[in-house]
Amino acid sequence: MGTDSSATLARAALSRLFEPSDTVGLGLVATVGPVDALRIARSELAVGGEIRRSLRELLGSADGPRDPLQDSLARWAPRVPELAPERDLATLRRLAGRLVTPETDEWPVALDDLQGGTPICLWVRGTQAIPPQARLASVVGSRDSTPYGSSVTTELSAGLVTRGYGVVSGGAYGIDAQAHRAALASASDHGSPTIAVLAGGIDRYYPAGNEELLRTIAQRGLLLAEVPPGSSPTRWRFLQRNRLIAALSAVTVIVEARWRSGALNTAHHAAALGRPVGAVPGSVYSANSAGCHRLLRDGTAVCVADAADVAELAGPLGGEPLGDRARENAEPVRDQDGLSVPDLLVLDGLPVRAATTVDKLTSVAGLSVREVIGGLARLELAGLACRTGEGWRRRQR
Amino acid sequence: MGTDSSATLARAALSRLFEPSDTVGLGLVATVGPVDALRIARSELAVGGEIRRSLRELLGSADGPRDPLQDSLARWAPRVPELAPERDLATLRRLAGRLVTPETDEWPVALDDLQGGTPICLWVRGTQAIPPQARLASVVGSRDSTPYGSSVTTELSAGLVTRGYGVVSGGAYGIDAQAHRAALASASDHGSPTIAVLAGGIDRYYPAGNEELLRTIAQRGLLLAEVPPGSSPTRWRFLQRNRLIAALSAVTVIVEARWRSGALNTAHHAAALGRPVGAVPGSVYSANSAGCHRLLRDGTAVCVADAADVAELAGPLGGEPLGDRARENAEPVRDQDGLSVPDLLVLDGLPVRAATTVDKLTSVAGLSVREVIGGLARLELAGLACRTGEGWRRRQR
Repeated sequence: MGTDSSATLARAALSRLFEPSDTVGLGLVATVGPVDALRIARSELAVGGEIRRSLRELLGSADGPRDPLQDSLARWAPRVPELAPERDLATLRRLAGRLVTPETDEWPVALDDLQGGTPICLWVRGTQAIPPQARLASVVGSRDSTPYGSSVTTELSAGLVTRGYGVVSGGAYGIDAQAHRAALASASDHGSPTIAVLAGGIDRYYPAGNEELLRTIAQRGLLLAEVPPGSSPTRWRFLQRNRLIAALSAVTVIVEARWRSGALNTAHHAAALGRPVGAVPGSVYSANSAGCHRLLRDGTAVCVADAADVAELAGPLGGEPLGDRARENAEPVRDQDGLSVPDLLVLDGLPVRAATTVDKLTSVAGLSVREVIGGLARLELAGLACRTGEGWRRRQR
Repeated sequence: MGTDSSATLARAALSRLFEPSDTVGLGLVATVGPVDALRIARSELAVGGEIRRSLRELLGSADGPRDPLQDSLARWAPRVPELAPERDLATLRRLAGRLVTPETDEWPVALDDLQGGTPICLWVRGTQAIPPQARLASVVGSRDSTPYGSSVTTELSAGLVTRGYGVVSGGAYGIDAQAHRAALASASDHGSPTIAVLAGGIDRYYPAGNEELLRTIAQRGLLLAEVPPGSSPTRWRFLQRNRLIAALSAVTVIVEARWRSGALNTAHHAAALGRPVGAVPGSVYSANSAGCHRLLRDGTAVCVADAADVAELAGPLGGEPLGDRARENAEPVRDQDGLSVPDLLVLDGLPVRAATTVDKLTSVAGLSVREVIGGLARLELAGLACRTGEGWRRRQR
């Protein structure tokens, strides 16, 4: 299946070469594009003075004593012989996955708000398209959750799915797992009720105790990672993974967190992106709420007590406050604003990379044939669906 | 004891004539002074066109169809025959109380921030002086408190007293009573650990179940009211009382409150005055925390989990953020900023209206003779204490 574009192949390779948020690597891609960036990393292409200058300017290191690219080339060198993007993409296909890149329609433009930290690509498992930012809410928290935290998470997550949001979390024990589980339990068969953003490869079920859950998410939701299959979930990757959770969604909620907790890192990423952050209050005697209270006290987070509060923070579906860049790029997405709930369900049921039939859609979306046919007509008019030889598929404008 | 000034007598009478926050009555006092205001109310003095004009301007009703003073005179008329300020002041003396008015040294300048709603006077029981705003924290909440709320109140209130704050509350069941009790329990014998601001007269122990507590506060703390002895605690007076709680202190904390609760009224008074407001978080399942979460969510309050958080909100003792007017008027008070803790304790132990001895001060302030003598010398130098024939007393510059 040699249909992968050179950009796709290059990004697949670079995602193994670069650690997440490798600013020099990502800056090089921004400067010369992924294909030439890979050739430079592989020493197949010499780097001229102009590129070096552009890169140093982009990185804000124009006056630094050392050339950042030189250091990075040295850092990347040991990994160059291991690069085998065709093999990684073949693995991905065996997992029924796909590579989502800025060159593809499915690319979540919300990630571009990360600017210099925008991931090189996303390795994705799951059949549905990644919902737009406006329809995603992140629900995260400590691994050592209390019964209180689990209970609040269940209600929040279920309430968000009922309101039409997909729930993004990190697949960890505790709050994360509960958020995924409740989303799966509350979802009908349409849409992507939950997205787990992993620190390691999407074929690595980590932590092991959540393997069953992660397998279910791969089938009924989405597993995302910026590192290729087989990658280990290192501490650095965990911290960087949090920025993706924050960037993908319209709102980030911390249900329980200790005074020092990784969940606070996610909250700070969201706040840095200008995304609203919610924190669930709890007993002042609970160490697991101390981090939430800290976020409330320092003004990073707004107090949220239920899914309605979270939805209010996120803004209306499709009409949430976006960063400037995202606002610009998100125009097509925001055209969904005027859609009725049934039409949104039809849209959710439409695959991006394959075609489906009206019959299948009635089952996937839980709607009548009449509603599906009417919805498809309206979506086609809106430029969001198209009829192909095999049936209907989603179209992103 | 005919030593009361005409202004004192007039204010005592007017406090029975006017309901709290009677803007016309208070405006009349601001325009012509208390003595003439009383004479006008008693129809002993005709009101010229100029006074009516000034008053209408002050009240912002210059163009209204009706003359506000005429309506008010009619409203006050039935009470005029009942006025007997000498009798009320005699009652006050029997209660070992005093009338604090804007003309007296002890007047809490913080109340002036209430502007048109500044009380006409304060009826006060208790031996200590009213501490300055910077050293008072209000702790209030629902009457139907939970064990969680009681426990948090106890720790907050005790922690605040330990840190040198007096605790202001409303003498009600639940959170209020607990705040007073914990303050009394944590106080050494100096200072005014707690102030109950009552909606009725300071001789009315209301609610009846708190009589014992209120009697103790009259002895070891302060009971305050803007209505004269014998007055009933009506609903209007309760709501208005809340503004005094908010205005007296540097910070107002709501420990527990339902979604609709009188405690929220106190919080909104404090916020309107620009005073910091704290709210204690709790379980999202507790209806008694819903009002606190509401305050956190709408930005009225900051999340506070312990006394240290409250003290941080209040600002350093004596150096808290004040309203413009208060900042101007509070200069003498803020001269205490530089005092050491022992000197503050000596200052607290000094009575305003009587004299005391070094021996008594060692016991009241819990300090050694040497510390008391040294402290008195420094306080005298700072103009905060003076030596009289009978001993030492407090002096307010």
